[in-house]
Amino acid sequence: MIEERLKETIRDIHDFPKPGIVFKDITPILKDYQLCSDIVDKFADQCKDLKLDAVVGIESRGFLFGFLLANKLGLPFIPIRKQGRLPADTYQQRYDLEYGSASIEIHKDAFKPGARLLVHDDLLATGGTVVATSKLIQMMGGEIAAFAFVINLDFLKGAEKIRPFCDNIFSSVSYY
Amino acid sequence: MIEERLKETIRDIHDFPKPGIVFKDITPILKDYQLCSDIVDKFADQCKDLKLDAVVGIESRGFLFGFLLANKLGLPFIPIRKQGRLPADTYQQRYDLEYGSASIEIHKDAFKPGARLLVHDDLLATGGTVVATSKLIQMMGGEIAAFAFVINLDFLKGAEKIRPFCDNIFSSVSYY
Repeated sequence: MIEERLKETIRDIHDFPKPGIVFKDITPILKDYQLCSDIVDKFADQCKDLKLDAVVGIESRGFLFGFLLANKLGLPFIPIRKQGRLPADTYQQRYDLEYGSASIEIHKDAFKPGARLLVHDDLLATGGTVVATSKLIQMMGGEIAAFAFVINLDFLKGAEKIRPFCDNIFSSVSYY
Repeated sequence: MIEERLKETIRDIHDFPKPGIVFKDITPILKDYQLCSDIVDKFADQCKDLKLDAVVGIESRGFLFGFLLANKLGLPFIPIRKQGRLPADTYQQRYDLEYGSASIEIHKDAFKPGARLLVHDDLLATGGTVVATSKLIQMMGGEIAAFAFVINLDFLKGAEKIRPFCDNIFSSVSYY
């Protein structure tokens, strides 16, 4: 079972990035080539009937499994990046942080209207960046066919925020 | 030829991130699944006799082909990240920017002394972050067995800076 192997592999780091937070460290997963392959193979199997046109990955950690999945599926990879990093013309979307806000961007020519997209990040927490990504995609005429996360911190209720955009929500491991 | 396909695919963005700079945009490569596969297959072939123990990728764009290559080779992937992003105990290395400086980090338990590593980033420019990465690896007792870049901006002379660490320098396309 991938879920059990992940729970044994993911490392809890206490008080990161600040006191009281228990951070899920994925770097031990990245050391385990077979586990990484199995995670992506399972996503690929879950997506096989979704007629996807591309995989969207959110900077930075979403670049890892997102690009691997795109390659596995033989699909284009579309990066969502933090403000100021994408060099061509972009659309931006702001989202709230605990204090203040931040913006993500996507290239205007990233996909054509009607494209069916899978949105990936390594971890679903409160869902802020994933909602911002979903708004960008909808505004550009894209269709979200699935979300895929390695880790779903279910107790933070991110799934409730993103379900209005698409209710195909895949995760390799969930924490309740 | 991969080099010719890359030159046709990479997009020049003028005056990014600031006036006078011509930025090499890799996002059109990411849309071409077959080209991405071919880039990584060629790196894998170039590395096949190097007895590598892991692939090191530099945040953020180095996560893309770095993780794909690690998976292709069946090896662990080790992320180098910007300061404050890695949750467990780290070593840091400062490097100079045009104005001021920045730091990169690696987890202290990323690899064991004697490990033979390939260092990847998408683009070799002046070599600042790659030299900082190489210093971290050497300080931790690792051995750099190869460098691999998708793009080498040869006219910026980055290869001269990194060759003292290892002279196996692979690049998919060079600009002179």
